Amino acid sequence: MDQLLLKLEDHFEEMVIIRRYLHEHPEVSHEEVHTPAYIADFHRELGLEVREYVGGRGVVATLRGARPGKTVALRADFDALAIQELNDLPYKSKNDGVMHACGHDGHTATLLVLAKVLVGMREQLSGNIVFIHQHAEEIAPGGALAMIEDGCLNDVDVIFGTHLWAPTPLGEVLVKDGAIMAAADRFEIVIQGKGGHGAEPQHSVDAIVVGAHFVTQVQTITSRRIAPLQSGVVTIGQFEAINPFNVIADTVKIQGTVRALDEQVRKQIKEEIELLLKATCLGMHATYSYQYFDGYPPVVNHEEQTKFIAKVAEQTSGVEKVTECPPFMIGEDYGYYMQHIPGTFFFTGAKDPLWETVYPHHHAKFDFDERAMLIAAKVLGRAALEFLEND
Amino acid sequence: MDQLLLKLEDHFEEMVIIRRYLHEHPEVSHEEVHTPAYIADFHRELGLEVREYVGGRGVVATLRGARPGKTVALRADFDALAIQELNDLPYKSKNDGVMHACGHDGHTATLLVLAKVLVGMREQLSGNIVFIHQHAEEIAPGGALAMIEDGCLNDVDVIFGTHLWAPTPLGEVLVKDGAIMAAADRFEIVIQGKGGHGAEPQHSVDAIVVGAHFVTQVQTITSRRIAPLQSGVVTIGQFEAINPFNVIADTVKIQGTVRALDEQVRKQIKEEIELLLKATCLGMHATYSYQYFDGYPPVVNHEEQTKFIAKVAEQTSGVEKVTECPPFMIGEDYGYYMQHIPGTFFFTGAKDPLWETVYPHHHAKFDFDERAMLIAAKVLGRAALEFLEND
Amino acid sequence: MDQLLLKLEDHFEEMVIIRRYLHEHPEVSHEEVHTPAYIADFHRELGLEVREYVGGRGVVATLRGARPGKTVALRADFDALAIQELNDLPYKSKNDGVMHACGHDGHTATLLVLAKVLVGMREQLSGNIVFIHQHAEEIAPGGALAMIEDGCLNDVDVIFGTHLWAPTPLGEVLVKDGAIMAAADRFEIVIQGKGGHGAEPQHSVDAIVVGAHFVTQVQTITSRRIAPLQSGVVTIGQFEAINPFNVIADTVKIQGTVRALDEQVRKQIKEEIELLLKATCLGMHATYSYQYFDGYPPVVNHEEQTKFIAKVAEQTSGVEKVTECPPFMIGEDYGYYMQHIPGTFFFTGAKDPLWETVYPHHHAKFDFDERAMLIAAKVLGRAALEFLEND
Amino acid sequence: MDQLLLKLEDHFEEMVIIRRYLHEHPEVSHEEVHTPAYIADFHRELGLEVREYVGGRGVVATLRGARPGKTVALRADFDALAIQELNDLPYKSKNDGVMHACGHDGHTATLLVLAKVLVGMREQLSGNIVFIHQHAEEIAPGGALAMIEDGCLNDVDVIFGTHLWAPTPLGEVLVKDGAIMAAADRFEIVIQGKGGHGAEPQHSVDAIVVGAHFVTQVQTITSRRIAPLQSGVVTIGQFEAINPFNVIADTVKIQGTVRALDEQVRKQIKEEIELLLKATCLGMHATYSYQYFDGYPPVVNHEEQTKFIAKVAEQTSGVEKVTECPPFMIGEDYGYYMQHIPGTFFFTGAKDPLWETVYPHHHAKFDFDERAMLIAAKVLGRAALEFLEND
Repeated sequence: MDQLLLKLEDHFEEMVIIRRYLHEHPEVSHEEVHTPAYIADFHRELGLEVREYVGGRGVVATLRGARPGKTVALRADFDALAIQELNDLPYKSKNDGVMHACGHDGHTATLLVLAKVLVGMREQLSGNIVFIHQHAEEIAPGGALAMIEDGCLNDVDVIFGTHLWAPTPLGEVLVKDGAIMAAADRFEIVIQGKGGHGAEPQHSVDAIVVGAHFVTQVQTITSRRIAPLQSGVVTIGQFEAINPFNVIADTVKIQGTVRALDEQVRKQIKEEIELLLKATCLGMHATYSYQYFDGYPPVVNHEEQTKFIAKVAEQTSGVEKVTECPPFMIGEDYGYYMQHIPGTFFFTGAKDPLWETVYPHHHAKFDFDERAMLIAAKVLGRAALEFLEND
Repeated sequence: MDQLLLKLEDHFEEMVIIRRYLHEHPEVSHEEVHTPAYIADFHRELGLEVREYVGGRGVVATLRGARPGKTVALRADFDALAIQELNDLPYKSKNDGVMHACGHDGHTATLLVLAKVLVGMREQLSGNIVFIHQHAEEIAPGGALAMIEDGCLNDVDVIFGTHLWAPTPLGEVLVKDGAIMAAADRFEIVIQGKGGHGAEPQHSVDAIVVGAHFVTQVQTITSRRIAPLQSGVVTIGQFEAINPFNVIADTVKIQGTVRALDEQVRKQIKEEIELLLKATCLGMHATYSYQYFDGYPPVVNHEEQTKFIAKVAEQTSGVEKVTECPPFMIGEDYGYYMQHIPGTFFFTGAKDPLWETVYPHHHAKFDFDERAMLIAAKVLGRAALEFLEND
Repeated sequence: MDQLLLKLEDHFEEMVIIRRYLHEHPEVSHEEVHTPAYIADFHRELGLEVREYVGGRGVVATLRGARPGKTVALRADFDALAIQELNDLPYKSKNDGVMHACGHDGHTATLLVLAKVLVGMREQLSGNIVFIHQHAEEIAPGGALAMIEDGCLNDVDVIFGTHLWAPTPLGEVLVKDGAIMAAADRFEIVIQGKGGHGAEPQHSVDAIVVGAHFVTQVQTITSRRIAPLQSGVVTIGQFEAINPFNVIADTVKIQGTVRALDEQVRKQIKEEIELLLKATCLGMHATYSYQYFDGYPPVVNHEEQTKFIAKVAEQTSGVEKVTECPPFMIGEDYGYYMQHIPGTFFFTGAKDPLWETVYPHHHAKFDFDERAMLIAAKVLGRAALEFLEND
Repeated sequence: MDQLLLKLEDHFEEMVIIRRYLHEHPEVSHEEVHTPAYIADFHRELGLEVREYVGGRGVVATLRGARPGKTVALRADFDALAIQELNDLPYKSKNDGVMHACGHDGHTATLLVLAKVLVGMREQLSGNIVFIHQHAEEIAPGGALAMIEDGCLNDVDVIFGTHLWAPTPLGEVLVKDGAIMAAADRFEIVIQGKGGHGAEPQHSVDAIVVGAHFVTQVQTITSRRIAPLQSGVVTIGQFEAINPFNVIADTVKIQGTVRALDEQVRKQIKEEIELLLKATCLGMHATYSYQYFDGYPPVVNHEEQTKFIAKVAEQTSGVEKVTECPPFMIGEDYGYYMQHIPGTFFFTGAKDPLWETVYPHHHAKFDFDERAMLIAAKVLGRAALEFLEND
């Protein structure tokens, strides 16, 4: 165990280099080309068995131990977001309008370097370690489902994964039994008014005004329709009505997301959105279309594996605190893996203690403390080794 | 006079051909290249004196009569709009995202064919006729000001102009002494929130929600702050917040227009918009920028010339009715011309009596009854001839 | 004529005394008891023929001239409003919650003293003067209709009336041919939600939230549905939801008024209100009732009588300026009289030039410059005399 | 124990009679006169020591057991609400506008009859039982604090209390360690616009429109400012703007409540309300006053006593299910007692299984299944006896 941790510490610099290289070359979900090639090359150079294009663009690398045993999977996602980076960093994104604003560059670097270290410990291994590099986590239906269908969990006994987490201080690890992350759905709306000259509203139906009233009414779903003790989120991320300044908007395109930890709440929100949309349009002479796309299911951790990872984390140098966290309202397709095999998902604190401002994940100025990668690698690596040993 | 009208009728087919050609090849304001070249060539072939690039992209052609006399100017604008045409016509716009949705193609065809006919009547002319083909009417600061500065009104004694008007039935001509069209200003707003993950509103400031509340509050300017008998319009034509569906909007970009017939109302609206913007942002932890661009002044017709054009119109075949109209809330840079010389501006009804639906100007399905061009040419031509004769 | 004006000036002090007495003793519409009795007594003491309880609570006094001739009617209304006076005046209202906040006390004093002076000129009169003291102008269906049905216009040839007008400076008189005042309707709404405990919105339908969204949406009728050059007003004067602070509102009661100068706009507003109400309730699980009460018709002045009163006013001492005003959005049941006989209605400026703040009519701090009564009496009296003489 | 339960069952009819008597004669908080007198008389007839006017209007009765021992307090509140009962029941409230719409009539009947039964078991008692009948639970600052200051907890070792709970089925008991009920604050707002004539909005500041926009914006506190996993409630229960239909509202009076389980959230909501209020008024030319009254602290149950009551309830006939509930967003001043001595507060299900509709507490049609009183009496009585025995 000590050997693993020391070796990882020796390789920390390499993790940083890889992470920054990936950060400079982000690729949005479902369009990843260079990233999976880079990952596959890396693992091939280590001498692992590598499968590419798993479930589309995923990469699976398998390290077979010297002795037979169980198989543990470790998962990292590698896609980026369609966000224009506003950081002024030496390793700032070189791809216009694309950014690793969620830390998947760090996940990937963590797993690659961990693989390198574990390859050196092959002789001690009883069993196998499968490195699942998943594409397209950010956009449903995501890569997990396709990779599972394409066999990435075949013969795998347990799965561990983590998310580097900028709002949580470095040194803290968050675990939770049961639902740790929410269902995350998407919806698309088109409000159809009637365009016209900006000076003659009486001949038009101003889709922006309809849309604005819809947005203000949507706030009442959370404030009045959902129980205060229930958790429900409706966020409208897109409101698009682009016209010359003096033209009344013919249409507005709206996109948003719904989050809920409870299936009933999820269903209610879906229905309330449409009811408010229908009503607002009715009152203002507009029409609409409404499409609702079910996203990822909740990420539901298994009890035994969660206790296990909490214990492992507590014994790992660099981890100062293991906390049981409340559920997060964000979604992850990691939940699909745990519908098939036992496992757990945890958060690795990645906030530099010197930072005064922490930009949230998906922000154009997002960044994380790179030392969190070392901690994540230690916990994941140790969990893999202990799991195989204890078996 | 009869000669003019008969010749124009003979050339109606040509007007239609020219108009449809221009309709197929629209160019947005300040980017007109082929249209002014086409116009200049046309006039050159008629043997007129032609000045190109007047005030930027305008074209001025001068027809000198056989005998000396006064000079009358006729004006037509020729720019198009950044609108994707939704008409299914044989002469539909071939330029993606650009459309003659305001009838300037018709104005131009009218003036060109009128010039052609008048050239043939040169021997009868005592004085000169200046054809002012103006670019960039749709976007302030517009072409008129620059063309005037570049001399287009030099030695001109009077100016006449018209707008083909789809909401008014064919055969009707609208005139009005004093303010016939409104001041038309533009504003640009950026609401700066704080972007973030769609599932974590508490760490963000949702610029779309701020913007939506701003839009709903802006409605109260008209409903509560402006006297019911005053005319004030605030239209927000653009509301742009384009993000991934699950990202809370960092910023919203808003553009809109203000219309007023009264300088005090115009000033009040300008101030009330900012006050509401400031307040909404204050209450919701956002900040803003607000830019207000004074647009065209009101189009204020001169009394004598207005009476003159009304009389001319009444005596013109094809004109069934001359109506004194209320002011229009739309803007025009034609008002600049009348700050220098006497003149008037009128509307020529262009609604096909068989149409059940009339799409407003600036609508993606806008169209007009082409026979209105003939009426406009007759009134303008006759006004020019009578003005020169009577002098 | 001079005699009339001089005598009125001599009696100005009496006008003030009467007005202040009435101001101290206001009575709301349809509950006037002491006011009409006071008026009737006054006229009886002058020796006029007096009819009480005309159309309910109206008073009609007739002054028969020494010689036969035509009959002219002068009208003043005498009801007050259910407003708690906030003025600190020696003659402040003694009736709690009731106030002459519209100047009807002044109208009445004007007419009474004018009658007194005219009685002294009986010998010069060829014809009759009918003093119509009308009750219940403030609340539809108003007193005018009932008084007309009860014969107050029998044998009357023409009618003149005025409103003392605090926003207009003393010395100015406002006249207008055609529609000078608007249609004024009333509506009542009940929004039915579902009450409950303030901490459990999920089990309730919060009628206040529904009502608030309705109010914000109603603003779009004026801002987006009515042409900027049309005049339409929707004012919600009452929003009543009174519950303990921690109880979610079961119902909201709303009352308001609609004003329009055009019958089509009036109809459209009536319908748009209900459409928005229906829609807002639909979207938020509430129900509603909507009652719309047609109020007074527009006050449409007759051309000949309007020109006549303008000329009379211009020749009257104290009148410095006769202005053609735009129409007022307020309502008056005076319009009913002119559906039967010719007449006109004008405004008499009543703003003390030294006032910095003018409280609008119906405000709890409303007041007017009492010298306006003298001007009103002069114009009305002179109009009556000239009308009878000229005949 | 069996003796207690059997005797209580024998006295169920009496409980019902007392409850219905109290239901017919409700008294609002801080105005209770007959209710405490009735309670005091009842206990005096039982021969207990009775203190009246404790902390104002509270009643404390002490049953001293035959042998010395510890002292256990049982608490019931007895005030009613200013709600007009809409039930059509034989025992409907006889006091206009006042109603036992929260079940305090049941709490009181439960405790009185329980006292009667326990008096009969005095010989078996080692220690004392204090019956705390508290006034004014509904309106902060409530009766608890004053009764404690007036000594009601002197020498008391533990306290138990319950709330009959209509939304929970009869037979179910809800317990929870830690915060079981929320902080509940109150706020009062006056929005000061400028009144005026309904037809002239331009001269006024429409306080109803300002207030409506404020209400819609307040919804964003819950939807956007509070974390989805935090629980925060803002309810506006009163929105009062009562004017004639044609008068623009000068002022609006708003009252509401804030609920939070977390002190930081509570503070944030308090501040966000004012910020939105300030901003909305700023943008619309209005001013405001804002008063915030801190209400009850959270009700925080003690672990040992909560486990104890859960065990007691599980062993009690009539209780079919003991559930660990989530916290309730409603407030209670019971929390004050537990700031001084150990104790717990639980909910006794009171929904008749045959009911299809359950009206929430504080609803004008609220009712509960009276058999819940028997269950509550059994659990409280048994808890008292076991506590004294076990000591």
